[in-house]
Amino acid sequence: MEIDWFLRFFDFAGTLVFAISGAIAGARRRLDAYGLYVLAIVTALGGGMIRDVLLGHTPPRVLTDIVYLASASAGAFLVIAFNRFSARFENVLRIFDAIGLGIFTVIGTRLSMEAGVPWFTAIMLGIITGTGGGMLRDILSGEVPYVLQKEIYALAALAGSAAYVGWLLIPELPPSIGILVTASITTGIRLIAVYRNWHLPQFKEPPKSPDK
Amino acid sequence: MEIDWFLRFFDFAGTLVFAISGAIAGARRRLDAYGLYVLAIVTALGGGMIRDVLLGHTPPRVLTDIVYLASASAGAFLVIAFNRFSARFENVLRIFDAIGLGIFTVIGTRLSMEAGVPWFTAIMLGIITGTGGGMLRDILSGEVPYVLQKEIYALAALAGSAAYVGWLLIPELPPSIGILVTASITTGIRLIAVYRNWHLPQFKEPPKSPDK
Amino acid sequence: MEIDWFLRFFDFAGTLVFAISGAIAGARRRLDAYGLYVLAIVTALGGGMIRDVLLGHTPPRVLTDIVYLASASAGAFLVIAFNRFSARFENVLRIFDAIGLGIFTVIGTRLSMEAGVPWFTAIMLGIITGTGGGMLRDILSGEVPYVLQKEIYALAALAGSAAYVGWLLIPELPPSIGILVTASITTGIRLIAVYRNWHLPQFKEPPKSPDK
Repeated sequence: MEIDWFLRFFDFAGTLVFAISGAIAGARRRLDAYGLYVLAIVTALGGGMIRDVLLGHTPPRVLTDIVYLASASAGAFLVIAFNRFSARFENVLRIFDAIGLGIFTVIGTRLSMEAGVPWFTAIMLGIITGTGGGMLRDILSGEVPYVLQKEIYALAALAGSAAYVGWLLIPELPPSIGILVTASITTGIRLIAVYRNWHLPQFKEPPKSPDK
Repeated sequence: MEIDWFLRFFDFAGTLVFAISGAIAGARRRLDAYGLYVLAIVTALGGGMIRDVLLGHTPPRVLTDIVYLASASAGAFLVIAFNRFSARFENVLRIFDAIGLGIFTVIGTRLSMEAGVPWFTAIMLGIITGTGGGMLRDILSGEVPYVLQKEIYALAALAGSAAYVGWLLIPELPPSIGILVTASITTGIRLIAVYRNWHLPQFKEPPKSPDK
Repeated sequence: MEIDWFLRFFDFAGTLVFAISGAIAGARRRLDAYGLYVLAIVTALGGGMIRDVLLGHTPPRVLTDIVYLASASAGAFLVIAFNRFSARFENVLRIFDAIGLGIFTVIGTRLSMEAGVPWFTAIMLGIITGTGGGMLRDILSGEVPYVLQKEIYALAALAGSAAYVGWLLIPELPPSIGILVTASITTGIRLIAVYRNWHLPQFKEPPKSPDK
């Protein structure tokens, strides 16, 4: 019971940060408030939608529980309110994307385990859940998807997802802490990769356009 | 019974106009007749396929009822027959896209309500049905998706979908007229947005390339 | 029983060659080993995933049977080991893509027939299975999808899929041979189209950039 509420809250948080990442991606592509909003919603709800379809949970929970749409809208409006500000911050996009990646990967893994699939299927579905929304965001905004780029991305999701499956093997460990710890593993690995990448381009590319 | 036939006819009409929009998009990208046909089919059947998958209605109706494929093929062949003509008409594409958007949005909303989902889920699924095929068309033909562009698009779908849900609240109103009226709301809002956009670029861009 | 093993082996072979095609596409886009691997997996598992979702077989078999992931990984590692070599070979990509197209189209048709859908639905699902993975590959790597390009592609899938449906009508014919024969029809038609295309560009484009 308690874990379910914790999980729901966590899922809404992931939806919020992914919506922010989608809206920032839209701002960087110079979309107006309307395009920003649509891209934010697709990014925030896309991963969970793909996961539920693959698990056969239809209609997907992100469509039937209005709090997901509300969380995503809140994230979108936050960026729209600070639009001029956010468009410059490639790095802010990456941080929010990394947090969403961690949360959605572990929640996707957990929901798949609850659906009774084998552990490697749960890991694959966790990675799909974590990376799916961002992949849709990148395809729609015409960028090379993060998941294919140089920096570790799906690999970070794999680490967190596998860690969560491992955590469940030890019944003494509290499951809610496990979600926090393993989501942090994914987000942490991803942020370290991003941080190392921040500094490298300075030797290769002009500093004025860090995102191209 | 009567409403079902009306609905089917309306759905085939939407399939036909979306196929036309897909084929025109292909012609504008200088695809040959073969590429035009494939793009037309994907555009025409994509929205209904996504909707049925999200509702758990598998295999999707657009694949099991051959009239959908026939309608889509008819739309594609129409464009192929007038290929040289249609390639220049960005505006024709937008008009057919707007009609398809209206029809598919309201039908998607209705089928979702029949499946017993909450009203806001039905509205979201209506918007996904209406915009999904065009989104696939734009992604495949390498354009920035309409749904993200400046002009009102998903918002027009939202208006028609919400209007249809509202129409159902009043049992005195005949449901078949409701489909016509609310689809016209979406198409009308979209066309007004398109019309206003037709005139604006003349002040900003050279008239020779209206599609860039 | 025997046919099932034959089919599984054939399916794994298709997964392997599609993974190779995805990894080569990544190498041509100058992705590193990590990006190559992700693109290979998506290409190899994408078609079967889409097919199973459309048939309502969830979670998809490519996610629950780990041999698919192993086959796809083997294909990816093969290309990574010969990375510098493979990046130049557009034609190698096309050959592996044609083999995968043949295998996946016929397997998709067969699994759909087993699911009890009408014959034309089985043909459409066969085409979707065969072309889906490559379409995802092309969208993710930012290329105009093969399925829309000048050369016969979905048409080759249609021919093999229809031939397989026809083969099943004659009970005297052994089904396992039918899979081989009809997959070869698709691959053969596709390769003839590719071969004719290999020679044409020499008269139109400089030989240094065969992939643009």
